[in-house]
Amino acid sequence: MWFQKELQLKPRPRGFHLITDEIILGINELKNFKVGLANLFIKHTSASLTINENASPDVRVDLESYFNKYVPENASFYEHTTEGPDDMPAHIKASLMGASLNIPIKDGRLNLGTWQGVYLCEHRNHGGSRKIVVTISGETYE
Amino acid sequence: MWFQKELQLKPRPRGFHLITDEIILGINELKNFKVGLANLFIKHTSASLTINENASPDVRVDLESYFNKYVPENASFYEHTTEGPDDMPAHIKASLMGASLNIPIKDGRLNLGTWQGVYLCEHRNHGGSRKIVVTISGETYE
Amino acid sequence: MWFQKELQLKPRPRGFHLITDEIILGINELKNFKVGLANLFIKHTSASLTINENASPDVRVDLESYFNKYVPENASFYEHTTEGPDDMPAHIKASLMGASLNIPIKDGRLNLGTWQGVYLCEHRNHGGSRKIVVTISGETYE
Repeated sequence: MWFQKELQLKPRPRGFHLITDEIILGINELKNFKVGLANLFIKHTSASLTINENASPDVRVDLESYFNKYVPENASFYEHTTEGPDDMPAHIKASLMGASLNIPIKDGRLNLGTWQGVYLCEHRNHGGSRKIVVTISGETYE
Repeated sequence: MWFQKELQLKPRPRGFHLITDEIILGINELKNFKVGLANLFIKHTSASLTINENASPDVRVDLESYFNKYVPENASFYEHTTEGPDDMPAHIKASLMGASLNIPIKDGRLNLGTWQGVYLCEHRNHGGSRKIVVTISGETYE
Repeated sequence: MWFQKELQLKPRPRGFHLITDEIILGINELKNFKVGLANLFIKHTSASLTINENASPDVRVDLESYFNKYVPENASFYEHTTEGPDDMPAHIKASLMGASLNIPIKDGRLNLGTWQGVYLCEHRNHGGSRKIVVTISGETYE
């Protein structure tokens, strides 16, 4: 059994954002799957998806600080500079984190750990509304 | 055909650990799948999974050294410090490496390259026993 | 419906390479899938796969520059040095980027964003021809 849907996230500022609830609200069909996998795929190259701690907001602040320090703007060796100082670092961060997540489904729910949440990693200053393709496959309740 | 099972790994010290055999021993059902995919998903935000060289143990030592140097403890900009100096670096490493692997299955076995093995990346000093959800889908032998 | 095939890529020099077309040409069966997922899995530990910008070639140049600077050769702490100065950095880069991609399929095509392409990240100076296992599952047109 297959299901695919494109979600349009609300725009968010640069940084790491917990979006588990927005994703789940967008895929009402999830509850039909007894067992399966959900693939979340972001259709952009300057934002990414990751799974991390769903409790302390300071984890998200520190992730943003870390990646800004270790993937700096205006590095002297960048050649791709015409789209602004936040663009090339955004591409690098996108490859470090990745464009997709694969999350197991059990009993109609995402089978995440207690402390796990889905993050949108918005690497641009003004990234706008991002598109995520959700593809679910699995066994449904009859 | 779908199969899902939660494995509880034996506790390991901080570092990179080859766990291919422990995973395979835990999923006896793998041999029933002629073709398919295995998703390994770690239910934690301070440990991760990766695929790397299954031969020289010094690759695992160097990976640990590298990540300790480039994701340092006690960085001055960390705000999330109450859970110990190894906690925030663990969250960063978890997002750099990722929570899940997707490995093709062929003829009842993981279709890995000759030198590939599955690693548990334990980023905490005392992470304890980690849980991995294994989800397999594919075509079984009749 | 399941499909699996091993592709042998043509050899490429060290660096980031756009291989979307080579992959698609190798999987003619893709057009049969109305909805699904394609898993691309590289069977090596010194090369990786990522998704990034398919337009400006300077993005690929800057990615190579970035990873060479932040995953240096000849770091004093490397113990795994017998296979050449490019080997241990290649293993680290492979774990940072990852061995596999999962891309949604819609209407017989990869459901990528407008600016997304599939990259081979060749981390060795002379990596030779790399093998990628493509596994597709989904609903086919009857």
